[in-house]
Amino acid sequence: MELKRTRIGIQGIGGSFHGLAAYQYFEGQQIEIVQCDSFKKEFDALSQSECDWIVVAIENTLAGSILTNYTLLENSEFQIVGETYLGVNHCLMALPGQKIEEFESVFSHPMALLQCEDFLSQFQRMASVEKKDTASSAKEIAEKKLMKTAAIGPKGAAEKFGLEIYASDIQTHKLNFTRFLIIGPKEKEVEGANKASIVLQIEDKPGSLQQVLETFTPFEINLTKIQSIPIIGKPHAYSFHFDLEWQPNTPWKMAIDAAKQKITGFKNLGVYKRGNRSDIVK
Amino acid sequence: MELKRTRIGIQGIGGSFHGLAAYQYFEGQQIEIVQCDSFKKEFDALSQSECDWIVVAIENTLAGSILTNYTLLENSEFQIVGETYLGVNHCLMALPGQKIEEFESVFSHPMALLQCEDFLSQFQRMASVEKKDTASSAKEIAEKKLMKTAAIGPKGAAEKFGLEIYASDIQTHKLNFTRFLIIGPKEKEVEGANKASIVLQIEDKPGSLQQVLETFTPFEINLTKIQSIPIIGKPHAYSFHFDLEWQPNTPWKMAIDAAKQKITGFKNLGVYKRGNRSDIVK
Repeated sequence: MELKRTRIGIQGIGGSFHGLAAYQYFEGQQIEIVQCDSFKKEFDALSQSECDWIVVAIENTLAGSILTNYTLLENSEFQIVGETYLGVNHCLMALPGQKIEEFESVFSHPMALLQCEDFLSQFQRMASVEKKDTASSAKEIAEKKLMKTAAIGPKGAAEKFGLEIYASDIQTHKLNFTRFLIIGPKEKEVEGANKASIVLQIEDKPGSLQQVLETFTPFEINLTKIQSIPIIGKPHAYSFHFDLEWQPNTPWKMAIDAAKQKITGFKNLGVYKRGNRSDIVK
Repeated sequence: MELKRTRIGIQGIGGSFHGLAAYQYFEGQQIEIVQCDSFKKEFDALSQSECDWIVVAIENTLAGSILTNYTLLENSEFQIVGETYLGVNHCLMALPGQKIEEFESVFSHPMALLQCEDFLSQFQRMASVEKKDTASSAKEIAEKKLMKTAAIGPKGAAEKFGLEIYASDIQTHKLNFTRFLIIGPKEKEVEGANKASIVLQIEDKPGSLQQVLETFTPFEINLTKIQSIPIIGKPHAYSFHFDLEWQPNTPWKMAIDAAKQKITGFKNLGVYKRGNRSDIVK
């Protein structure tokens, strides 16, 4: 009898950072990777039951939040069930037997090219070419046997496509990380949940945000993220993304109920266990 | 005698949204556009006195803040001297005399492709190709005389490169806008300034953010932006980007001094006149 594997949707192809994040979060479980062309198609795959969960990049130390992914989540019927943090370690890879000085172009995702800008500035003849993602940049070089062409991506992509690593850890900020959300159908409460992501609408007047924050203080709830987002079509209205974290036995539902008295709109994006961020700083 | 024009650095080429933003902000002045390949090169051009001011996209209703540009600003010797908002109106353009159903690929900046995703989903045979920016996508089609190929970008790009507009206002969110900062050397105070962008470091414990906000309330200072940003290499530390706006005759310096008592770090990114956001909602 064959056991049914959990199907995990990722953006891009296996060997990408999304693939790594999926294997990290579901470590020890048998998973099957479902490749999706875009973030939107990840949500589509979930709607059409082509996968059980999806892994979605949501923010990066360098680039900030990917608001479009928040929008996809808010407009879906799904919720956050977990998170995982991945240290970004970029490598320069190419077909074997070349010299780094000979490379004339370098393929990667625009964000990865940006993250390695200092490294690349040493090699003026290497022209940056923006591609869809890191792993498919490596794949293109391998499949088309492109000489004098390098890709930037994770080590796993070099291994997967038989490329040689010419330099590693080439990102400017060595301790950069990406946060990924694990998203899926609404289900019973996550055991040991100690974090929530919520979206609030708050009246546009001086002091109104402060009044909302006041309601959390007596509960010792820590705000690990706050971001105001202009509401499309309403020039002076904002919604706020909050991540809240709490210690065991905190009556967090009571705190959120208290906050709800001070706001004009509320959406719960998910209540889940926080991922380990100290892990990635090594 | 020839009058020296003010030289304005933009990212990308003339005809792009950056170019439009520059002409909007400096309306009525004689300006000369200095084209820069990247945001980083805009700051380099300013450092090397190749231009007098630069125009830099900083956030978009759909995509959020461009944190890398905040980082460039923070690491520079320059400051914000103004801002301007531009409604995003994307057009589909191509060489004249074709039919929209015949297009096989569409070039644009990844963000523009994303903004028009709903429109593009009607034309399944049109494959998206990510390019450096909107105007250079149009330029490539014009220069290489590419048939069956469209670009997404502002109307001005079609005019500049002699392309026909096949559809306009094709972005999903009709009231989407981009905010641009005008950045330049530190100078005397901007007359009539009513807005400041500051970066604060706040102690990581429950209630500390609320204590900072409390200091603004008596001054009726309105927070039009707040965003927490993880500090690279410090897993539980955050800095906060604030935009503050105030009415005439508000003692805003006093308010900021009061806030400084509650924080562990402070950087002033600029004190300037707020741009008109209601303008763009038409």
